[in-house]
Amino acid sequence: MEEVILKKISDPVMKDVTLIEGLPGVGNVGKLAVDHMIDELKPEHFLKIYSKNLPPQVLLDDDGIATLVSQNLYHYEKGGEHFVFLAGEYQGADSRGQYELAYTLLDFLNSEYGIQRIYTLGGYGLGKMLEEPRVLGAATSKEMAELMKKTGIIFSEGEPSNGIIGASGILLGLGKELFGVDGGCLMGETSGYIVDARSARNVLEALMKLTGIEVSTDALEAQSEEAEEILNNLREAAERSLESENDDLRYIG
Amino acid sequence: MEEVILKKISDPVMKDVTLIEGLPGVGNVGKLAVDHMIDELKPEHFLKIYSKNLPPQVLLDDDGIATLVSQNLYHYEKGGEHFVFLAGEYQGADSRGQYELAYTLLDFLNSEYGIQRIYTLGGYGLGKMLEEPRVLGAATSKEMAELMKKTGIIFSEGEPSNGIIGASGILLGLGKELFGVDGGCLMGETSGYIVDARSARNVLEALMKLTGIEVSTDALEAQSEEAEEILNNLREAAERSLESENDDLRYIG
Amino acid sequence: MEEVILKKISDPVMKDVTLIEGLPGVGNVGKLAVDHMIDELKPEHFLKIYSKNLPPQVLLDDDGIATLVSQNLYHYEKGGEHFVFLAGEYQGADSRGQYELAYTLLDFLNSEYGIQRIYTLGGYGLGKMLEEPRVLGAATSKEMAELMKKTGIIFSEGEPSNGIIGASGILLGLGKELFGVDGGCLMGETSGYIVDARSARNVLEALMKLTGIEVSTDALEAQSEEAEEILNNLREAAERSLESENDDLRYIG
Amino acid sequence: MEEVILKKISDPVMKDVTLIEGLPGVGNVGKLAVDHMIDELKPEHFLKIYSKNLPPQVLLDDDGIATLVSQNLYHYEKGGEHFVFLAGEYQGADSRGQYELAYTLLDFLNSEYGIQRIYTLGGYGLGKMLEEPRVLGAATSKEMAELMKKTGIIFSEGEPSNGIIGASGILLGLGKELFGVDGGCLMGETSGYIVDARSARNVLEALMKLTGIEVSTDALEAQSEEAEEILNNLREAAERSLESENDDLRYIG
Repeated sequence: MEEVILKKISDPVMKDVTLIEGLPGVGNVGKLAVDHMIDELKPEHFLKIYSKNLPPQVLLDDDGIATLVSQNLYHYEKGGEHFVFLAGEYQGADSRGQYELAYTLLDFLNSEYGIQRIYTLGGYGLGKMLEEPRVLGAATSKEMAELMKKTGIIFSEGEPSNGIIGASGILLGLGKELFGVDGGCLMGETSGYIVDARSARNVLEALMKLTGIEVSTDALEAQSEEAEEILNNLREAAERSLESENDDLRYIG
Repeated sequence: MEEVILKKISDPVMKDVTLIEGLPGVGNVGKLAVDHMIDELKPEHFLKIYSKNLPPQVLLDDDGIATLVSQNLYHYEKGGEHFVFLAGEYQGADSRGQYELAYTLLDFLNSEYGIQRIYTLGGYGLGKMLEEPRVLGAATSKEMAELMKKTGIIFSEGEPSNGIIGASGILLGLGKELFGVDGGCLMGETSGYIVDARSARNVLEALMKLTGIEVSTDALEAQSEEAEEILNNLREAAERSLESENDDLRYIG
Repeated sequence: MEEVILKKISDPVMKDVTLIEGLPGVGNVGKLAVDHMIDELKPEHFLKIYSKNLPPQVLLDDDGIATLVSQNLYHYEKGGEHFVFLAGEYQGADSRGQYELAYTLLDFLNSEYGIQRIYTLGGYGLGKMLEEPRVLGAATSKEMAELMKKTGIIFSEGEPSNGIIGASGILLGLGKELFGVDGGCLMGETSGYIVDARSARNVLEALMKLTGIEVSTDALEAQSEEAEEILNNLREAAERSLESENDDLRYIG
Repeated sequence: MEEVILKKISDPVMKDVTLIEGLPGVGNVGKLAVDHMIDELKPEHFLKIYSKNLPPQVLLDDDGIATLVSQNLYHYEKGGEHFVFLAGEYQGADSRGQYELAYTLLDFLNSEYGIQRIYTLGGYGLGKMLEEPRVLGAATSKEMAELMKKTGIIFSEGEPSNGIIGASGILLGLGKELFGVDGGCLMGETSGYIVDARSARNVLEALMKLTGIEVSTDALEAQSEEAEEILNNLREAAERSLESENDDLRYIG
């Protein structure tokens, strides 16, 4: 069995695409952002990616219909520019799998359509709740870095200190070094403790400024407010429970 | 060494086979069901599957005769329909191995005989003892799902929530996506704590309705009753021991 | 880099060889036995086996001279019969590595010289000290089993219950199934806690009866007695220390 | 994707090179020594090594510019002798990766330029602070061992007892066995608890005597003194804190 198997569903006419990756990761920030664009923009699902570097698993929908784990490509056009969204439920299973998947994808897009630019989306986990989470950036060229800074993305020395690990890193790295394509990573600050719709909205807004893609973020907003409400309720319940404990203790003294 | 080595023992005349998988897994439900059919129906053992994706191990029979770990295919014909049973002591050693074994097997059956349908059998572990364990289903097409529901197999939304992992999942997924073959998974509910012959019997009865295969389930029935008796004895012994402890404690107060 | 690299040192004239494996394992029984034969019989070292399935490591001799980790083949002739000893410091690093190493070796010997028979030597760990450790056997054919029983090797139903794992198993299994060569495994019972020269001597004595190879086992005998003496000293020291503790305690009461 | 991808940056004219490896390891001794030579001598960076046997990761510089993890070769000439430095942030991810990276590199250098000799640099961790850390040696030929001893490198029987594991071992081992090139390993004794600039300086001084390379070690000296000062401050602070605790305790009695 080949390392990676590409199964075309349709054959969109496109050239010099901008690849936008949003696979699962810290706070699921990148995945939320790209899945949201797919929900809203209804781009054309044109390629399925199967691989022995993904889990040996089928996923079930509500009707019990089973589908093999895959990564998927979607095509979206806006004002003559061609975007390819990379989405999925899983990243490559290990280091080698990450390389195989990223390399095969880049090689395919590059030889079939040409790649103009790569944006990878992810979360930057800080391990604490944040009042005003920022969007941090990294880029594989100075020009790309300047472009990203102009839209308000923050380049902060030494953050993240370990660089970028996984699909968001390897697509940028291989894209630059082996295919000569510039790229940037948009990292939404997040606690990393929750599926972070607020951080995803921030990343998406930065991406819209960068690419000209327009999409309502209302659903992410709503999801974020809902999550906050749940967290607040939990917090209040915890406080009440603490107070009543104190009440009980009052009678002991 | 190749990833998977197929060693033909005989060359059955068959066409458009129905593949039925029963490898080890949760509660060993699928394995019990398929091994039981092999015991009862005496199908023709026509292929051995060796692979570096299986453990580096020989198994010993009662005479100390050693046999290399393998998966095995058996051919059974009933009323002009051709069934292939997949049995063995082990699933693939890791994710990549699961893909290699499933892909090679499907590719072989597909190109040599054609595959009409795939049934995979397994257990669905619930972590608690069950009064009336059901047989849950999943399928790779709506037609197959309808067919399975008609025989009483239950499609329950959100169960199992993680989809199907391992040979039972990957054979269905690869079968559908790369070989265009519909399939279904029959999952017997089980505690998962024991080798569950009762759950295997349930699965087997559902499979018989689906396929027209007929086989006595008496041996599974007996095995299941034996296991229940042992469990009951253990339970009673535990209760008696608890009571006598309480007797002892009575004298303390 | 190829999975396994064979480097010929010389090109012995031989035919229909008997392969005798003694790699590290439980109690190092097999390794001790084969290394001892190499020390005593001075067979011709004719092949080095390098592989990425062995550790990335050099070993140092007393002069600080470094040698890449390898497995090694030695040729020994006795009365027109040709024996090949397989020795080394390591088995394959993982399951796949075990298969690659065993398959490549068998394929080489089979195509270059022909293989008549395979004996693999190992320990059978019982987790307790033994008064009279036996030599257990397993074989890949009934004829081989009969031959082994005649020399006093014991075939005991259900032992070892997990079959034979690692090089000693996979060489027998692949040898039989893919190369049509009969073989047997000689397992010396051992506690498994120590490097067990006594068990190795037992295995070697059984092997000599089987093969007609003659070699003094005095050195293994001496090593075994030395180990026993050390163990006895340790035991006595432990008992004395316990007694003196008891002496101390006497004064407390 | 190939196991290892070599990307030439320039094409230095050189012949019969001496390879000097300094990848991360115990105390980062080898890496410090080689990175220091690269800082001081400004050798020509002529090759990047990418591999799926390295982590799937980009590293960031202070401006947020991302670079794919790689190993790198530098060319330095001194008096007609050609040296190739191997540097990087990571060794191969696992055993197989170590072999793939080392083999591909040696094969490339050997076929393109010829290799005269290999020096690998590393730390020998002793698990305790040392007054006068030595430089230990190992070599793949007696001639090389003699050469190294003449420059004061110590060959100590039984040290290190496990041989040499990782890039420093495998380059020597494969170099000798498959490419016929002699080599030696210079191991600076180190506690292994810190990034050990003093041990790196010792190794570098020994290497200079061996190779005729001349480079100021002032920066390593300074780094080593700085580290020592920090350690001393920590020690004193710990002692003061202990004393003041004792002061407190005085008033209890």
